[in-house]
Amino acid sequence: MAAIAEESSRTRTDPKAIETVIGALASRFGNRVVTSLAVRQQHAHTQTWIENQPPDAVVFPQTADDVQEIVKLCAAHRVPVISFGAGTSLEGHVNAPFGGICIAFRDMNRVVAVHASDLDCTVEPGITRKQLNEHLRDQGLFFPIDPGADASIGGMAATRCSGTNAVRYGTMKDNVLALKVVLANGEMITTARRAKKSSAGYDLTRLLVGSEGTLGVITGITLKLAGIPEAIAAGICPFASVEAACNAAILTIQSGIPVARIELLDALQVKACNAYSKLTLPETPMLFVEFHGSDANVKEQSEQFGDIVRELGGGPFDWATKPEDRTRLWQARHDAYWAGRALRPGVQAFATDVCVPISWLAECVVETQRDLAATGLVAPILGHVGDGNFHVTLLVDMADADEVARAKALHSRLIARALAMDGTCTGEHGVGQGKMQYLAAEHGTAALDAMRAVKRALDPDNIMNPGKIVALG
Amino acid sequence: MAAIAEESSRTRTDPKAIETVIGALASRFGNRVVTSLAVRQQHAHTQTWIENQPPDAVVFPQTADDVQEIVKLCAAHRVPVISFGAGTSLEGHVNAPFGGICIAFRDMNRVVAVHASDLDCTVEPGITRKQLNEHLRDQGLFFPIDPGADASIGGMAATRCSGTNAVRYGTMKDNVLALKVVLANGEMITTARRAKKSSAGYDLTRLLVGSEGTLGVITGITLKLAGIPEAIAAGICPFASVEAACNAAILTIQSGIPVARIELLDALQVKACNAYSKLTLPETPMLFVEFHGSDANVKEQSEQFGDIVRELGGGPFDWATKPEDRTRLWQARHDAYWAGRALRPGVQAFATDVCVPISWLAECVVETQRDLAATGLVAPILGHVGDGNFHVTLLVDMADADEVARAKALHSRLIARALAMDGTCTGEHGVGQGKMQYLAAEHGTAALDAMRAVKRALDPDNIMNPGKIVALG
Repeated sequence: MAAIAEESSRTRTDPKAIETVIGALASRFGNRVVTSLAVRQQHAHTQTWIENQPPDAVVFPQTADDVQEIVKLCAAHRVPVISFGAGTSLEGHVNAPFGGICIAFRDMNRVVAVHASDLDCTVEPGITRKQLNEHLRDQGLFFPIDPGADASIGGMAATRCSGTNAVRYGTMKDNVLALKVVLANGEMITTARRAKKSSAGYDLTRLLVGSEGTLGVITGITLKLAGIPEAIAAGICPFASVEAACNAAILTIQSGIPVARIELLDALQVKACNAYSKLTLPETPMLFVEFHGSDANVKEQSEQFGDIVRELGGGPFDWATKPEDRTRLWQARHDAYWAGRALRPGVQAFATDVCVPISWLAECVVETQRDLAATGLVAPILGHVGDGNFHVTLLVDMADADEVARAKALHSRLIARALAMDGTCTGEHGVGQGKMQYLAAEHGTAALDAMRAVKRALDPDNIMNPGKIVALG
Repeated sequence: MAAIAEESSRTRTDPKAIETVIGALASRFGNRVVTSLAVRQQHAHTQTWIENQPPDAVVFPQTADDVQEIVKLCAAHRVPVISFGAGTSLEGHVNAPFGGICIAFRDMNRVVAVHASDLDCTVEPGITRKQLNEHLRDQGLFFPIDPGADASIGGMAATRCSGTNAVRYGTMKDNVLALKVVLANGEMITTARRAKKSSAGYDLTRLLVGSEGTLGVITGITLKLAGIPEAIAAGICPFASVEAACNAAILTIQSGIPVARIELLDALQVKACNAYSKLTLPETPMLFVEFHGSDANVKEQSEQFGDIVRELGGGPFDWATKPEDRTRLWQARHDAYWAGRALRPGVQAFATDVCVPISWLAECVVETQRDLAATGLVAPILGHVGDGNFHVTLLVDMADADEVARAKALHSRLIARALAMDGTCTGEHGVGQGKMQYLAAEHGTAALDAMRAVKRALDPDNIMNPGKIVALG
């Protein structure tokens, strides 16, 4: 709370300033400015255990110029600006702890250009990854980053998101070529050209990717695309233990097999998926895998992976050869979060993620399972284990103060465990409000001060999504 | 010159301050501080057409703590600090236009740790890529980034270098996991953990990669590694025209063939290589290619590439099946810069590079060749064409003012051409002193101001390699 109190001394939450800005927005944008409590709460509400802190108004711009106008207006009155994409974030990224104006990108969801021959495209921030892939399919192209949820591309860039395909295709940092951004001073910049690589100055693209709206508002994104693979093979494979499943993932990566997806579900998560998605999987740790390539190459990868599975006593391997079987399989994986929540209907999901060097993965997962068992908490585990990244979805009765306290303590131990293994407090969810308290332990105060210096340099009045990532003194 | 004059008002070049710092360094580091003109000139001399601007002293630290001590001392007296790796940079990165202390990493070239099971390692900045690969070979691993020259890893990170393998393995931004850096305030930070991905705050790693020593001094680098491929196939293929060769590269990328290297040499460059490396290649545009993978996969890639070559009327393809033939081939490619220089012995090589979206590549190269012909300048062209990146090595008699003027004008037209094609003024050489004047045209003044704001935030006294990337007012 000290941090928040300090921030508020820099960040105007003066009701008169807010009133002035809302008035000006309303006369400029008419009914594209909404102040009803329901809409405001909806635009602060995400899949998070953190309390809802609504903005003072939600505005729906239609162009980058609209966004620039909104930011200039807010800047003139030192009113906070919070960007909103599809509302799938997990760490309170879109909450408005100091009030302010939410810029919701619902109406900015166009594909601006597809350069098929350059394998890139430019989009507005509000488009979701499924909408984009729908648009691209006819051209034999796809955008591979897949966090499960149908997130907006702007939000995915803002949180440096990754997901199931990252083990092969990288994260948003690897797949954003350039950003169009409105800065706190009202200037609109483009961070890079469409060239595939550049050494022309500081990498503003990568500085903005993962900055969660705290350094600027993203109004356009140029993305790398991939060709839809000639062949795709997917399947699932049970293991006797989480260690064996993790070790299969580790060996797969170390062998250089270019697996496109390699996902761990622990026994509890499999049980949840069986119930939710009406599957009949053996309720034991499983790997879901997918290989992309030519027919011959996919066959070769599958065989190499089969050898590893046998070596570790896993199997039998169950191939989903038909596209509809594959779709059902990945739908179940994507619904795993909802399946997990259905294990304890009505309680809150407290979803977190950590990422460790892959040699530490098995130990980190197993220790976490032991910790869960000892603490008496229910939390399915699933992970993008090819990257050493896994999720723990704590199912917590928020009305039970003791249970909440146990969940928070376990969460802190999980992060301490990951950091002790040279890992990170978040592999892909981002910092938002939920992970701010762990950044000093992860980066050290000097590095955190460097982040603060960058934040102050680009947003001296702290109007860009204040109260996220780093608190300013 | 205005920019330099402005900068010098912020940057102390007070002879007394320099004298004090050198005295303190000498009493602390003894004969690891050198002030002889020859050594100072050697540490400003790189493969560049820009005049030699030596530092006031060169110091050879042995540890990161030494570096921190040196930076703190310089910071206390506002004396510039310039980092020096292997001296292979091309844009005046290591010049000392305001004097100051050169930190030369000759004695900091250790491998700190290799985590083979995580496919990563940590090294000191002075190690060269060949030294590192020598160290890694026994473990079946290699570091794939290969700029040709035997550059230091610290310098490669500082310039966001890439080179021949980047088309498959990415650039330094994709292969640096974390940096240990001494900031201008004397603090030593680590920018990230060893986890393969993270969303934990601003991406200081990517901000520092490519910052050319202007935001901090790199004292350690954690790198991703790759397994040495099971099979490697390489070969060369002549084409009737540069367009046909570029189009073959374009089709290769668009077809999703994971080519490891695909290098264009224009006819003049081939002629130069024949003379310098005693080859007997047909003196026509050529592609040098290399495929990595399993035996079967490499065969498949080669066949797919062969189809493309036939379609474009290229060939015959000449495979280097024996490792020694392959080594000779790539040695010739790596010596291409020296081969080019030998076309006009005694003159200066004015080496530059641009990068464009691949659909513009053929047009950009062909227009540049026409421009060269019209201007009467000698300049072999070679390029990492899978990334749309190519080099023009202008061979210029620096004593001939008219020729120098024509070369500089052609250079400016080349960059304008690349920018008009949505490209960048440098794909991999970096900005240094040579490309500063082009950044406003590439990024716009607002983006450049954002870069300046970041620079000022992290280096308020402008002691970190001043006069590079952005000039401070």
